[in-house]
Amino acid sequence: MDTVAIVGVGLMGGSFALGLRAAGFRGRILGVSSPRALEAALARGVIDEGLPLKQAVPAADLIYLANPIDRILEILPEVARLARPGSLTTDAGSTKVAIVDRAAECFRGSALFLGGHPMAGKAERGVEAAEAGLLRGAPYVLTPASGVLPKRPAVRSFLSWLDRLGVSPIVLSPHDHDRIVAFTSHLPQLASSALASVVLENTRDPAERAVSGGGLRDTTRLARSAFDLWRDIVLTNTENIDCALSAYIEKLQRLRTNLRATVLKDEFERGAALLDELSRPS
Amino acid sequence: MDTVAIVGVGLMGGSFALGLRAAGFRGRILGVSSPRALEAALARGVIDEGLPLKQAVPAADLIYLANPIDRILEILPEVARLARPGSLTTDAGSTKVAIVDRAAECFRGSALFLGGHPMAGKAERGVEAAEAGLLRGAPYVLTPASGVLPKRPAVRSFLSWLDRLGVSPIVLSPHDHDRIVAFTSHLPQLASSALASVVLENTRDPAERAVSGGGLRDTTRLARSAFDLWRDIVLTNTENIDCALSAYIEKLQRLRTNLRATVLKDEFERGAALLDELSRPS
Repeated sequence: MDTVAIVGVGLMGGSFALGLRAAGFRGRILGVSSPRALEAALARGVIDEGLPLKQAVPAADLIYLANPIDRILEILPEVARLARPGSLTTDAGSTKVAIVDRAAECFRGSALFLGGHPMAGKAERGVEAAEAGLLRGAPYVLTPASGVLPKRPAVRSFLSWLDRLGVSPIVLSPHDHDRIVAFTSHLPQLASSALASVVLENTRDPAERAVSGGGLRDTTRLARSAFDLWRDIVLTNTENIDCALSAYIEKLQRLRTNLRATVLKDEFERGAALLDELSRPS
Repeated sequence: MDTVAIVGVGLMGGSFALGLRAAGFRGRILGVSSPRALEAALARGVIDEGLPLKQAVPAADLIYLANPIDRILEILPEVARLARPGSLTTDAGSTKVAIVDRAAECFRGSALFLGGHPMAGKAERGVEAAEAGLLRGAPYVLTPASGVLPKRPAVRSFLSWLDRLGVSPIVLSPHDHDRIVAFTSHLPQLASSALASVVLENTRDPAERAVSGGGLRDTTRLARSAFDLWRDIVLTNTENIDCALSAYIEKLQRLRTNLRATVLKDEFERGAALLDELSRPS
């Protein structure tokens, strides 16, 4: 792997590039992004050169698509046309069925596509916030359309770099990925935004909302997420999210109608069991 | 203020006692608790002496009730009978109407009662987890039945110690307190427990739940709270909590029926506004 093209040089694309460098990658890193992002990326040494998509993709062994989902869906046909034989295109989008399906329509021959979802993040966005260690230890899902990783040199090379980045990929089918993250990621996001909104609407002023502890801050922290990223997530995983919201609403209704009964105890104990699991060192 | 009786020497009572000591209190600190808690409190130097309620309360200028709510409600009549003229009894219960109403029935003459709610906490419980600095900077609500702090020497003395503990009390009526915390504290707790429970029920195994980021951990952190404390909260603030759950369910239903529409954008932006407010240094 000599040349990598990062398409969308923001928090995630920039962190992948910085991670590669820190892990010893000596090849060229090309960036495809807005002039402002390219300037910032060059200034931070995240990329070696900014190029248009048309020039960067054909030059690369690994094409890393780190744009918002709707942009990835939009450029996939062009990336597939431009990608050279033997290259690997992968992405960092938060939903996988729509992207992997679109890629299956476009990629032909020996230019491969493999969907990915690095589950790392932070509140800040943009290449200015990128960190070499952002992906280290975070779940990184790979979603081959067939459910099994292709045994091809470009995939083996990508996996070995992920390994050097401190990432142990989890292989899932695109459908399993989208079903799971609807509950483990998208539902917490919507629950958090809705909670923040309800608290704002039902308290009179900041002085009342200051009557709160760390619990409110933690449960509403995700409400800071940018809407434009989440719009794409909701639009490309609508059915699973609808199902997750429905289960959550049913659960809350059950709590509400049983506020005076012992069913509440069962929910607390079940909740605590998840916490024990999440806090166990993996 | 020469003698303080801590009734219920756990995390909160123990932290108040340690805070007093660290702030320079030279008087006696008596503890009323289980033999096991008293032993641990004596070993850590949290209290000077363990005594039965009957002996500790009449000896104290300040009686600090830090038991669970149902226990506070149970012992209030006896504490009121035992408290000496000029003394102040206060509490650390998380709901205030039930406790302040009960106290109003019991306290007569110059022995005063003033409800309180220190909004600090941590995951661990018991006097072993107590910290001198736990209350520092945390919201501490005082809820005089009349809505105004009584101008009595015992109250002035308590306020001056709170000040030395780094606490600036917020004065609210018991009803306003319970209405507000239903949204800022009790709803986040129930939303978190319900979320943890739904995620557990709708994923297949720990491997699937490991496909998650910090968002799931943050939004479900509260699900670790002990049920016995929350049972009392729910039982003594049922109507406000019912109202908060109802508003939350309605909001989630609105999100669900509008997953493809722009209403979602409004919720995200409203949610982000709360976050900006909570993160501003107070």
